[in-house]
Amino acid sequence: MSAHPAPLAIALGDPAGIGSEVILGAWQRLKAERRAPPAFVVGGPAVLRTAAEALGIDCPIVPIAEPAEALFASAAGLPVMAGLDAPWTPGKPSPEGARLALASLTWATKFALSGVAAGLVTAPIAKSALAAIGWDYPGQTEFLADACGQPYRDAVMMLAGPSLRTVPLTVHVALAEVPGLLSAELIIHKARIVAAGLRRDFGIAAPRLAIAALNPHAGEGGQFGDEEARIIAPAIAALQAEGIDAFGPVPGDALFMPRARTGYDAALCMYHDQALIPLKALEVDEGVNVTLGLPIIRTSPDHGTAFDIAGKGLADPGAMAAAIMMAADMAQARAAV
Amino acid sequence: MSAHPAPLAIALGDPAGIGSEVILGAWQRLKAERRAPPAFVVGGPAVLRTAAEALGIDCPIVPIAEPAEALFASAAGLPVMAGLDAPWTPGKPSPEGARLALASLTWATKFALSGVAAGLVTAPIAKSALAAIGWDYPGQTEFLADACGQPYRDAVMMLAGPSLRTVPLTVHVALAEVPGLLSAELIIHKARIVAAGLRRDFGIAAPRLAIAALNPHAGEGGQFGDEEARIIAPAIAALQAEGIDAFGPVPGDALFMPRARTGYDAALCMYHDQALIPLKALEVDEGVNVTLGLPIIRTSPDHGTAFDIAGKGLADPGAMAAAIMMAADMAQARAAV
Repeated sequence: MSAHPAPLAIALGDPAGIGSEVILGAWQRLKAERRAPPAFVVGGPAVLRTAAEALGIDCPIVPIAEPAEALFASAAGLPVMAGLDAPWTPGKPSPEGARLALASLTWATKFALSGVAAGLVTAPIAKSALAAIGWDYPGQTEFLADACGQPYRDAVMMLAGPSLRTVPLTVHVALAEVPGLLSAELIIHKARIVAAGLRRDFGIAAPRLAIAALNPHAGEGGQFGDEEARIIAPAIAALQAEGIDAFGPVPGDALFMPRARTGYDAALCMYHDQALIPLKALEVDEGVNVTLGLPIIRTSPDHGTAFDIAGKGLADPGAMAAAIMMAADMAQARAAV
Repeated sequence: MSAHPAPLAIALGDPAGIGSEVILGAWQRLKAERRAPPAFVVGGPAVLRTAAEALGIDCPIVPIAEPAEALFASAAGLPVMAGLDAPWTPGKPSPEGARLALASLTWATKFALSGVAAGLVTAPIAKSALAAIGWDYPGQTEFLADACGQPYRDAVMMLAGPSLRTVPLTVHVALAEVPGLLSAELIIHKARIVAAGLRRDFGIAAPRLAIAALNPHAGEGGQFGDEEARIIAPAIAALQAEGIDAFGPVPGDALFMPRARTGYDAALCMYHDQALIPLKALEVDEGVNVTLGLPIIRTSPDHGTAFDIAGKGLADPGAMAAAIMMAADMAQARAAV
């Protein structure tokens, strides 16, 4: 444990999206509330300066040459590493912007991997814009797994807000494919990663994991669907046998009732919307996407590039502020172990 | 329109479940708040009296011989039609209890159909207990459709709370079967019924219907799932062409964000949990199950018999009170047309 913690690296995201304005808004808010942790943006000083001026956000950009300067520079404003840049073109994705987004993400990841940065906060990218310049990952999470030398399946997405954490066990697949993708092995593998992540990065000594059912009413005793008995219940029994406090299968609609939510530290869900519907309904503008299972800390706001509202001053910086604070808290919890 | 509106008929539900105590609690609450509409319970005076005494609920039972007496009897307490009864056996379903539940439901439905009752409020039944005495309906809703001489598919379940209404287009089926059950015809058929119901019974002149996507991110342009382009979008176009204000497909996780919820009068969902998760997460103890598409008004609390807590005084009467008030409001809206 160092007396001077390393700063967080913030990847700029697509400069045509709302990334730059939510970074600026979040930083302004955290500074005003005297909560801003040591952090710096990787590249894009011109993007950020132009956006701040155009949108009237009072957030001075302080160019720095290396991460360690962030600790001092943040007294004067938002520290931004110079050297990578592009024009600010809100709403207009371009190959140049995609290249900047990719360079920012790549360098930010390297800083986190080497320990020069305490963790990584990523602003949203546009997969289509990156695909156009030859990037062929399904998303940032898979890119990060690869950069960390781990298989995709080890990188587990958790959505976290002030009162709820959810983990979709299958993510960007058609609903029709979900039942065929579920297995006890998948549930056990991801539950172990979630339990370890909650212990290591969230300071929860004995995490309680609620495991959702797939079918309505958990299949009502096999009347509509048998995945609960065939896949989910055996996975829960195996997790319990190795000392993980898992329970369920809990019917999806019961799992997120207010009383139920106090009974677990994370809800493991069978598909994307089962995890994302309650999170987005309940955690307004404060949803954070956390990647567990990698050696580095990584958080992200749970929204996309939102090209349609970029540059209009409409984007809420709440989720980005929450992502920055969650990464800082995780770094602290990890350092305290 | 009569100067003396007909009272609501309340079906007792399974006497071993929480039905009797939530009816008593709801009535006590509505009387105390001077909001109780004309209503009567169909059968079970001994069940209700025993439950009230055991649980210390101050709600006198006033036996009546015919529905019209309810208007006068309610000044003295809860009007209950005598003649059908059983012992109160909380937590212990029995054939005798199931027969009482079925007789109460059957007579309450007849009263609503004949106009002697302005509408029907049903306490929860236990399908397994009814199946044991030879009843072979999937649920009360299908029984009611049959009693009204209509096909099951005309009875559309809508879940309604103070700030959200959702309609599951498929209900008690395995998740794996959902994609195969969806069709443009199904969506159009149910959307028409919902639009007509909101107009007739909720006083909404031009109902706005949000139609959910099936796949995450609405399939992201066909990358994971094509039901949006193949089934849902054509259904929406057809509904718009006939003057129904339908829009979508809206990704499930975006549909229930607070800002999105202000944009529609009902959200039509592709499967059970997509509709029930947000409703139960957001509308605490106030969720009402409304049946649209039948000639009679019918509401129900959105919980089950809860045999495990029956008779313990733990059941919250909020949803039953909301179901009674919603039926009364619907009757008023219908009478005003």
